[in-house]
Amino acid sequence: MNTKYQKEVQTKLTKGLLDTIILQYLQQESMHGYHLITKIRKGFGVYFGPSTIYPMLCLLEKKGYIQSAWNMDCERPKKVYKLTEQGKSVLNYAENSLIMICQRLAPETSTKIESAPTILA
Amino acid sequence: MNTKYQKEVQTKLTKGLLDTIILQYLQQESMHGYHLITKIRKGFGVYFGPSTIYPMLCLLEKKGYIQSAWNMDCERPKKVYKLTEQGKSVLNYAENSLIMICQRLAPETSTKIESAPTILA
Repeated sequence: MNTKYQKEVQTKLTKGLLDTIILQYLQQESMHGYHLITKIRKGFGVYFGPSTIYPMLCLLEKKGYIQSAWNMDCERPKKVYKLTEQGKSVLNYAENSLIMICQRLAPETSTKIESAPTILA
Repeated sequence: MNTKYQKEVQTKLTKGLLDTIILQYLQQESMHGYHLITKIRKGFGVYFGPSTIYPMLCLLEKKGYIQSAWNMDCERPKKVYKLTEQGKSVLNYAENSLIMICQRLAPETSTKIESAPTILA
């Protein structure tokens, strides 16, 4: 399979799981939108720009999964997002569902997954 | 978390991975669209109707991942879909990428996943 297809598959999968990925990063630490964009690009090798990330952050906030506050300590004010209790519970459920889906999709996952490196830090 | 949110999370995750799920089912056996709809509903507990499944099958065929042929042996002709060699290679790559994403999202996955039941038959 050529690189074009690989990139397409990677992008599609990451996009389909983008809200879960965002919640997971915010569980580790509160951060602003641009920080999230960088984290996703570095962690998953896929670039999602502001036009994808900010509407999704807005939606997640509307649903009550995350909460934003202005940080005025920077050179210019930055909106910082943090995970809410509801967001934590949704994330936990999503992670477990994802594991089940992985297991159904690739039953040999258990052996493969153990040897996969943990990149998210 | 209430059932409404659980259902929403389940539906979103499954929808995001729908093309990979379809390719995986077609790797097991060639089948027609309605059969796929039933399989997905039973396997993942989420119903995607003809208006979701058929355009996706059409797209996957355009990309060369699956191939369709009319089965005239039934009471009325049915379009049967099968995975192509290119589809197999895309599926394999998608499965491995998904495992990596799972691992990055939930590093404790390796222990959880081993105890998860294999439902896909």
